[in-house]
Amino acid sequence: MVKLKFMLLKEYNPYLEYKNGELFLEGVSLKELAKEYGTPLYVYSASYIRDRIRAYKEAFPNALICYAVKANFNPHIVALTKEEGAGADVVSGGELYCALKAGVEPSKIVYAGVGKTLQEITFAVEKDILMFNVESHMELDVLNEVGERLGKKVRVAIRVNPDVDPRTHPYISTGMKKSKFGIDIKQAKEEYRYARSLKNLEVVGIHCHIGSQILDVSPYIEAVEKVVGLYEELIKDGFDIKYIDLGGGLGIKYQPDQANPEPEDLAKAIMPSLRGVQAKLILEPGRSIVGNAGILLTQVQFLKDKGHKHFVIVDAGMNDLIRPAIYSAYHHIVPVVERDVKYIKTDVVGPICETGDFLALDREIPYVERGDYLAVLSAGAYGFAMSSHYNARPKACELLVEKGKVKVIRRRETYEDIFNACFS
Amino acid sequence: MVKLKFMLLKEYNPYLEYKNGELFLEGVSLKELAKEYGTPLYVYSASYIRDRIRAYKEAFPNALICYAVKANFNPHIVALTKEEGAGADVVSGGELYCALKAGVEPSKIVYAGVGKTLQEITFAVEKDILMFNVESHMELDVLNEVGERLGKKVRVAIRVNPDVDPRTHPYISTGMKKSKFGIDIKQAKEEYRYARSLKNLEVVGIHCHIGSQILDVSPYIEAVEKVVGLYEELIKDGFDIKYIDLGGGLGIKYQPDQANPEPEDLAKAIMPSLRGVQAKLILEPGRSIVGNAGILLTQVQFLKDKGHKHFVIVDAGMNDLIRPAIYSAYHHIVPVVERDVKYIKTDVVGPICETGDFLALDREIPYVERGDYLAVLSAGAYGFAMSSHYNARPKACELLVEKGKVKVIRRRETYEDIFNACFS
Repeated sequence: MVKLKFMLLKEYNPYLEYKNGELFLEGVSLKELAKEYGTPLYVYSASYIRDRIRAYKEAFPNALICYAVKANFNPHIVALTKEEGAGADVVSGGELYCALKAGVEPSKIVYAGVGKTLQEITFAVEKDILMFNVESHMELDVLNEVGERLGKKVRVAIRVNPDVDPRTHPYISTGMKKSKFGIDIKQAKEEYRYARSLKNLEVVGIHCHIGSQILDVSPYIEAVEKVVGLYEELIKDGFDIKYIDLGGGLGIKYQPDQANPEPEDLAKAIMPSLRGVQAKLILEPGRSIVGNAGILLTQVQFLKDKGHKHFVIVDAGMNDLIRPAIYSAYHHIVPVVERDVKYIKTDVVGPICETGDFLALDREIPYVERGDYLAVLSAGAYGFAMSSHYNARPKACELLVEKGKVKVIRRRETYEDIFNACFS
Repeated sequence: MVKLKFMLLKEYNPYLEYKNGELFLEGVSLKELAKEYGTPLYVYSASYIRDRIRAYKEAFPNALICYAVKANFNPHIVALTKEEGAGADVVSGGELYCALKAGVEPSKIVYAGVGKTLQEITFAVEKDILMFNVESHMELDVLNEVGERLGKKVRVAIRVNPDVDPRTHPYISTGMKKSKFGIDIKQAKEEYRYARSLKNLEVVGIHCHIGSQILDVSPYIEAVEKVVGLYEELIKDGFDIKYIDLGGGLGIKYQPDQANPEPEDLAKAIMPSLRGVQAKLILEPGRSIVGNAGILLTQVQFLKDKGHKHFVIVDAGMNDLIRPAIYSAYHHIVPVVERDVKYIKTDVVGPICETGDFLALDREIPYVERGDYLAVLSAGAYGFAMSSHYNARPKACELLVEKGKVKVIRRRETYEDIFNACFS
């Protein structure tokens, strides 16, 4: 039993372990962190993030790995991926600002997104990023105009929509025909020719993104085959396609019995189809880099036994982690300090005044008491990144731990922080 | 047709109107505001908010109206409700901070919430608020301890759960038996006696909250009857119940064909049951005060016609207004400047890299072009309040307009604002 549990934690994050019944991440006591920095508290493991970037680089030695900043836009996290040689996949001016602040070279930044504003486009063109992943015909015109105004050739890839079902949550399926993203692959050639006709654009790539939290690599194979088909047609047509950018993120382990594909599995699946391709491969992992690097620590405030229903009320709410409410997402929850007692079946809920504010429903967790700390696993991606001030709650503190060392990468907000922009 | 549309807008907000085909709020051109302050932009009508507080005061002349700060916690909005004589219903330390900052007297502040932390409780006891709406047995103990530590009697109401189905979205149904909120009304008497036994507590009220966006007043009648039953038992038992606090908010018009109850309708429904009650009535309206006071202005960035599917891509995303994504909520969308042309069936989507980022799906709206402004109605409640920095997007600017005058009540955030706490 203890052995099994030990193995299970390692499957989430090899740097996570119980020592004498107390949970440690990279050798740092999570109980001590919670006491010192308060809760709710995000803690990330730096070594895990480094390992994940390296796993991608080993599986794809010739590819450019662009970390998908949207998963976690703390600049210190982005800087860590940069140290390991990653570029950045950004989807807004704010993320571009963040990537640059983190030291990522503009020549390693790709920029996707259906609603790029004129200011955002201007900012990115001025910074001379590697390429724009263009989502619509109209965007080609706007990029061309900005290029003309700034006297620059704007490098573009067209985001093609391969109409592949990634078999994930509908909200994060992005490559299906009915989605707002990209240009249908069948219309793509026409758009490529149109792009070539615009004198301030340089057509350099093909972009494709099928979704997030993808647990089965077969949709990738399907997508890659379609993209390679287009690539070959474009080459024949005289295009100089330098980059094939395959977005769409590998799934991670959320549920204890969930198996997730590794970068190596992805490489085995798609590299055969890419054999004849001269273009450089770009990948955009986000969740699979940071998801299981991060833990959300929370403290039990109250227990409530209604007879027919039991509640553990904690101090982390849907404003801190909205994934359960919005995607019905599962996050595994373990005690920070083990108690040698029975399990209870309970709802783990937050303090927000809304029934949708829960971390887990009808979940078996070890018995807890007021003041105990719980660790919510797999919280590194789309956790803090989606956090809000709902119920006027200050945003949590974020810590990065590495080999026993602790760094505050975002201080806890104060009440003043929430209202600053109302008085300045 | 024009007449009908005119009538329709008035049903949302009487201060909203087209003049020569251009939308105005309280006499202010929304196009000019969008141009001057940029988009996405929240604009609130002060007169509407004043009118709504007055409507509650007229319908319930002897009640204390406590504005539910959670609906919109901009301190300038809270201050406006205070000017009209309202108190505040808060659910966190941050909301209490906000209410005090807005000038609300502590003697008019009630504090509910299942997960009040020790710091929050201490803050509220020190400020001597009117009363705590207590959600659990354990919370009574903690309040008593804090009262002892600070040498104060802590005024409490117990939040009782009447097990009434408010017939609204499950996430905002709060008074059902399986909900995390309150204490089952059948167990309440026991908890009241326990509360009386604690020497640092003063039992002063009964609190009840059945949900939000309630369009039919009959669940209120059911809840009030149960509460009055408990009230009578408690009086017989020697309790001095000074307040009956009826939470649970009246629904507002979101859909064009939706009728919504007025404060007067609520009064007619529940006052008969309260005839023999000496306790002062407290109400906690939030959404019905600010919901239709507010509009979210957004600018069309791109149009995309995929043949089988049409998209209008705007610059407001789910980070600005998450209600469509999380509650499948309907928000009516109208052009800021009318064009005399045909309607299109389209998805109105935001710039966030997620399929869940939409404002409207398969909606008929008047034809628009790049650069046009759209007004998203009914955005005053749970709009900005739930906004996030997802995709590293700065939070929107908020304006308050009143009789032709404009006040910036929250400046637009910069990229620096998003990352400040990472470097300070």
